[in-house]
Amino acid sequence: MPNAIPEDSVGIVEPQSARFDSPLELACGRTLDSYELIYETYGTLNAQRSNAVLICHALSGTHHAAGYHSVDDRKPGWWDAYIGPGKPIDTSRFYVVCLNNLGGCNGSTGPTSIDPKTGKIFGPDFPVMTVPDWVNSQARLADYLGIDVWAAVVGGSLGGMQALQWSISFPERMLHTVVIAAAPKLTAQNIAFNEVARQAIMSDPCFHNGRYADHNTLPRQGLALARMVGHITYLSEDSMGDKFGRDLRSDKINFGFDVEFQVESYLRYQGEMFSEAFDANTYLLMTKALDYFDPAAACNGNLAEVLKQAKSDYLLVSFSTDWRFAPARSEEIVNALTQAGRNVSYACIESPHGHDAFLIPNPRYQAVFSAYMNRIANGIEAGAL
Amino acid sequence: MPNAIPEDSVGIVEPQSARFDSPLELACGRTLDSYELIYETYGTLNAQRSNAVLICHALSGTHHAAGYHSVDDRKPGWWDAYIGPGKPIDTSRFYVVCLNNLGGCNGSTGPTSIDPKTGKIFGPDFPVMTVPDWVNSQARLADYLGIDVWAAVVGGSLGGMQALQWSISFPERMLHTVVIAAAPKLTAQNIAFNEVARQAIMSDPCFHNGRYADHNTLPRQGLALARMVGHITYLSEDSMGDKFGRDLRSDKINFGFDVEFQVESYLRYQGEMFSEAFDANTYLLMTKALDYFDPAAACNGNLAEVLKQAKSDYLLVSFSTDWRFAPARSEEIVNALTQAGRNVSYACIESPHGHDAFLIPNPRYQAVFSAYMNRIANGIEAGAL
Repeated sequence: MPNAIPEDSVGIVEPQSARFDSPLELACGRTLDSYELIYETYGTLNAQRSNAVLICHALSGTHHAAGYHSVDDRKPGWWDAYIGPGKPIDTSRFYVVCLNNLGGCNGSTGPTSIDPKTGKIFGPDFPVMTVPDWVNSQARLADYLGIDVWAAVVGGSLGGMQALQWSISFPERMLHTVVIAAAPKLTAQNIAFNEVARQAIMSDPCFHNGRYADHNTLPRQGLALARMVGHITYLSEDSMGDKFGRDLRSDKINFGFDVEFQVESYLRYQGEMFSEAFDANTYLLMTKALDYFDPAAACNGNLAEVLKQAKSDYLLVSFSTDWRFAPARSEEIVNALTQAGRNVSYACIESPHGHDAFLIPNPRYQAVFSAYMNRIANGIEAGAL
Repeated sequence: MPNAIPEDSVGIVEPQSARFDSPLELACGRTLDSYELIYETYGTLNAQRSNAVLICHALSGTHHAAGYHSVDDRKPGWWDAYIGPGKPIDTSRFYVVCLNNLGGCNGSTGPTSIDPKTGKIFGPDFPVMTVPDWVNSQARLADYLGIDVWAAVVGGSLGGMQALQWSISFPERMLHTVVIAAAPKLTAQNIAFNEVARQAIMSDPCFHNGRYADHNTLPRQGLALARMVGHITYLSEDSMGDKFGRDLRSDKINFGFDVEFQVESYLRYQGEMFSEAFDANTYLLMTKALDYFDPAAACNGNLAEVLKQAKSDYLLVSFSTDWRFAPARSEEIVNALTQAGRNVSYACIESPHGHDAFLIPNPRYQAVFSAYMNRIANGIEAGAL
């Protein structure tokens, strides 16, 4: 934690848990009889219960989007730059909910949880999740919290896909959709990178077909490799160049295969840290949810047709150097929304930071995001008066 | 082989071998006391010995650039589209030489060769090679073949880097340099992808610190993964999309981690084939030679200053959708050559095929390449009359 909690922080937050005992049918045909979701909330739900905002997380995100878990916490939540008093998602005006998705490894039911049917952990037997499955489970969390209609559903990357799906699955239960650095579906290249990540994990001899826990081990090398590949795709070529260039760790080339360039050292470190903190079966499942996402498939590839059932207004944001989900991918969604007759605001933000830009402070992005969210808050507060 | 050998093929070719017994000092400080180079030649050396063209190969290339090894051969050499009678490198006019680089695994001395000092295979003890080392070893092959001056030194990708280095190391021994789809040095992102490939190989439990031969095994999974990562960077996003899109192998999603999308199947197959045919220690060494290449480093990063010692004319070619070595990287070389006062022709070719475009038939590329090479041949033949 910083020396003192910053004034624009939501402060110390405590995760909460909700248990669901009615079966959830999944796209894969299987059913989860019961499950728990871990979540955090920031801000206060107004009397009309009309100021609630749902935050959907990306591949490796968690329910901990803002604030600190304790005074000893060294880092705030993953979207702390955008959630807090006076920030784009202004917690002095909104009641913000962020959960760990089903299949995650941060407290919600997932591969590391005990399967009540067997008394053993699910491991690879946990069902493959899809974005619509997540949205269904999130709607139940809304019921549990007494939120009939979200003021907005918001997400970046895979989180943006969930927000988009929300507007299709539950058009009556939300007024605004914010889709940041996302795509209407993955390209062959996106799937190819995910497949390399999966192969890295599954070919690790410690993977044991996903039953590594039974063997008291973890597929650390495979997961680290998967993260290294992913990490390269999150950064722009320029930002990697600016950050590391061709700088060596020591003053000369050593003509060997140990770490020599700073960029190698950085990537290995990132991979190793991640492999200690994240569950490999969850990683596999998250990449599959990405690969499968394709809402237009329901209408023979016609996204505009699918979006005709949506009712919300939209903000779409992309970043100039994002090559994982390039601005053109957001523009596909914008065009389909326009064709479907939806109200849509769109900004492509100049940023050197590639896909990661959606997490990083940026004045123009903050301005666009704040303006859109403030308009929503103004409307709510005018209605509540 | 096709039913009949095509008329524009160099036909059946036979690799030859040259042995060198004077020590070769390497950039790493070590010395190779003796070594062999395997090579092929196509066409006829003229009486003036002035029509010789050297072809330098890329990461996974070999000495077998054109023609067939036997009537049963199913595929011609790797650059058969560009080498042969009437082709850009016209074997009815040029005497063409292509060798397997030192450290390779196709017949030249490399990690799979016996170390005469120990009587065991080199394995990981084979010295790390650099582009200047290769150029020095190629100059000795020129001596052996009685070629004082190359009409041209030609290469694509890592081969283009060798051609560029030739013009710096041996300006008196060549008249033309053809650098295709190359870069003056790798970016941090390029190095990062290489590092992922190396980590994939080195973390394979069958790698045994490079002594897999002693354990009668091969790091197949690691090498396959490395190739999968590399392969993604050789193709353009669009060409992957056109080739595979999001097509499934069967008629529906199976909600599991087996191969589902065509692009996954393709990549796994490519990886597996490669891992049977290529040596992992050679792969490591080749990626390091790429990482280290940086001729401008000799002049504090000033490439134009380094190129002032060159004397040849140049043809540079890049491809519009190549994101591994994008057109801008070739243009850095073009600009430095112009600043250094060299004659340089440059073409950026429209192609959907990404980095792989340098290997693939393309009318505009063939026209530019042919025009340049024909001009050289005309000059030689005029001088020889």
